[in-house]
Amino acid sequence: MPETIPADSVGLVEPRRLAFDEPLALDCGRTLDQYELVYETYGELNADASNAVLVCHALSGDHHAAGYHSMDDRKPGWWEACIGPGKPIDTRRFFVVSPNNIGSCKGSTGPNTINPATGEYYGPDFPIVTCGDWARSQQRLMRALGIDQWTAVVGPSLGGMQVIQWAIDFPDSLRNAIVIAAAPKLTAQNIAFNEVARQAITSDTEFHAGRYYEHGTVPRRGLMLARMLGHITYLSDDAMRAKFGRELQAGKLSFSFDSEFSVESYLRYQGRQFVDRFDANSYLLMTKSLDYFDPAAKTNDDLAAALAPAKARFLVMSFTSDWRFSPARSREIVKALLDNHKRVSYVEIAAEHGHDAFLMPIDHYIAVFGAHMQRVATECTPTEVAA
Amino acid sequence: MPETIPADSVGLVEPRRLAFDEPLALDCGRTLDQYELVYETYGELNADASNAVLVCHALSGDHHAAGYHSMDDRKPGWWEACIGPGKPIDTRRFFVVSPNNIGSCKGSTGPNTINPATGEYYGPDFPIVTCGDWARSQQRLMRALGIDQWTAVVGPSLGGMQVIQWAIDFPDSLRNAIVIAAAPKLTAQNIAFNEVARQAITSDTEFHAGRYYEHGTVPRRGLMLARMLGHITYLSDDAMRAKFGRELQAGKLSFSFDSEFSVESYLRYQGRQFVDRFDANSYLLMTKSLDYFDPAAKTNDDLAAALAPAKARFLVMSFTSDWRFSPARSREIVKALLDNHKRVSYVEIAAEHGHDAFLMPIDHYIAVFGAHMQRVATECTPTEVAA
Repeated sequence: MPETIPADSVGLVEPRRLAFDEPLALDCGRTLDQYELVYETYGELNADASNAVLVCHALSGDHHAAGYHSMDDRKPGWWEACIGPGKPIDTRRFFVVSPNNIGSCKGSTGPNTINPATGEYYGPDFPIVTCGDWARSQQRLMRALGIDQWTAVVGPSLGGMQVIQWAIDFPDSLRNAIVIAAAPKLTAQNIAFNEVARQAITSDTEFHAGRYYEHGTVPRRGLMLARMLGHITYLSDDAMRAKFGRELQAGKLSFSFDSEFSVESYLRYQGRQFVDRFDANSYLLMTKSLDYFDPAAKTNDDLAAALAPAKARFLVMSFTSDWRFSPARSREIVKALLDNHKRVSYVEIAAEHGHDAFLMPIDHYIAVFGAHMQRVATECTPTEVAA
Repeated sequence: MPETIPADSVGLVEPRRLAFDEPLALDCGRTLDQYELVYETYGELNADASNAVLVCHALSGDHHAAGYHSMDDRKPGWWEACIGPGKPIDTRRFFVVSPNNIGSCKGSTGPNTINPATGEYYGPDFPIVTCGDWARSQQRLMRALGIDQWTAVVGPSLGGMQVIQWAIDFPDSLRNAIVIAAAPKLTAQNIAFNEVARQAITSDTEFHAGRYYEHGTVPRRGLMLARMLGHITYLSDDAMRAKFGRELQAGKLSFSFDSEFSVESYLRYQGRQFVDRFDANSYLLMTKSLDYFDPAAKTNDDLAAALAPAKARFLVMSFTSDWRFSPARSREIVKALLDNHKRVSYVEIAAEHGHDAFLMPIDHYIAVFGAHMQRVATECTPTEVAA
């Protein structure tokens, strides 16, 4: 809980909600007749709506990217390091829009919301959604907010994949694409980790084929395992060594199956926390969306051809110790852009934190990201903010 | 099923069993009043018992390292690539002893055997055993077989850790130590993977605090998850890419949670297979033994000091794509030996297979291993085999 809100925070914020009644055709072939998006905004839209930035969230992220919902909040939004006055996404210059993805579980239409056609929870009937579906759903939000073009679409991890999708599908709707700690598609190993996480959830006896809301249960054990496993892939081996080494909770071996190495109790804690804040059906959907992201699938595995329609200027950033989506994966994106003679800057940030580095206030990261966004800001009309 | 047994196989073999009635004091402070070891032998012990090789198995391995139990066997023993006439551990020269570890589940005393003191399964009451306990239990087997000194103790992965333990604890009982794809201790990340595997098992509703034998259940889901997760760490990312890429079972996305990428169905298959051949309580014990292996813990984290008592000549081998126990971890062992001016050869084998490479008939691996063992053989009395 912040006693006072830091001066470089966007401060107290409130989620908003917009309903869309026009049916949304999904990549899976099904249609959502209607959907709602919960989103937050930070900063002010300027007179010609030229300073709007779309933030796309990662797997377990949500619309609450910056600031606090109340003075009692223990923590600010997930990207507090990068969004706020004087921060890379400077809310004195930009109007930031941060929606929760459909299929997620933080208020936008998803498995844990009511299907108006049936009056029941969507649950496992919610369609598998893709980065393409998200971009389409967000384009309507853009229009509803009176924005013709984002000055930038920005996202880390699965959010970075959405940025790529935006640049391909709506080339005229964004001037800048900022892709952080992402990959042009998952490897077999990435998919394998997701599959074990999914199996952990679906094999939990409390899962009830996804209809656990009706059963009054939660597949806690499965979701906890999925999160523990995820955490291992978010942290680098070095970061784990620095954080825990082989430190023993009690100072000596217990010769029991209690949590005794510090890393064990850390993982159990993270797993338990997650169960209280995330929905298992959404976790399944988000991991599947990751697995499915593969823009080059439509162009005979030619990523350059897939990226050919993009018009945005790109910034691609990666972190040296990220083994989930390593720098080599980011360089695949950069190469495909260069093969197209697209405008792209690439920065590899030296960081020990693994994939999670995108969340951290790492000096070099913040400096590079900030300098780039300052340049982006110069392209926006510097007039006073709109009424 | 082999129609005929290959000429370079040890052929049909039979497990043997030895009971030890002298109490075995364990590192955990408890004592096993009696225990049995199941083991196999290949080749013939020579007249002065100078040609005996001890093979130590990995986590899910067992005594069946080579040959076939019957003509109906679908597969030979786990190390068929390296044990047999003309193979690196040449059974025309060596007498090979391959025991199943106590605490495992393939016949030696462990959780799935009856505790003679109670007439019930040991189950979760079986003590947590260590590499030190295994070395002590195996030393008695050595004596019972009329062997004073192994010409070599050999093992991959957790087996390699046992080799190190043997060299430290019984320096006069082995002339050669061959440590393959091992590490001087686990990293926090290694422990974290083991912990998720253990949580998967213990949180399975069929686990019943380890007393599932009495309940007539098996924690299938948990053990399956543990194995799936293990498999990801045994294979390199490259090996997975080569084996599966992002290949789809049905050729196109199903937009469902069925197993659709080839790697998913592979993992599910491996997980299901494992449940039929391994015991969950033993899996818990074996992973804990891995976590606990840390010979330098007794010497203030000084691995060289820990290895100072060793007298054996060492061969240390690693595989380039092994990310579970990477070449860097093997080099830690080599450096500590060199710091002691011990005799050590180190070979890093270029291999795509990840940790599992130690099982494979990789040309360079077989050639180096074989050449080293030929040199070891020259130290054994070349007399005709004993009666």
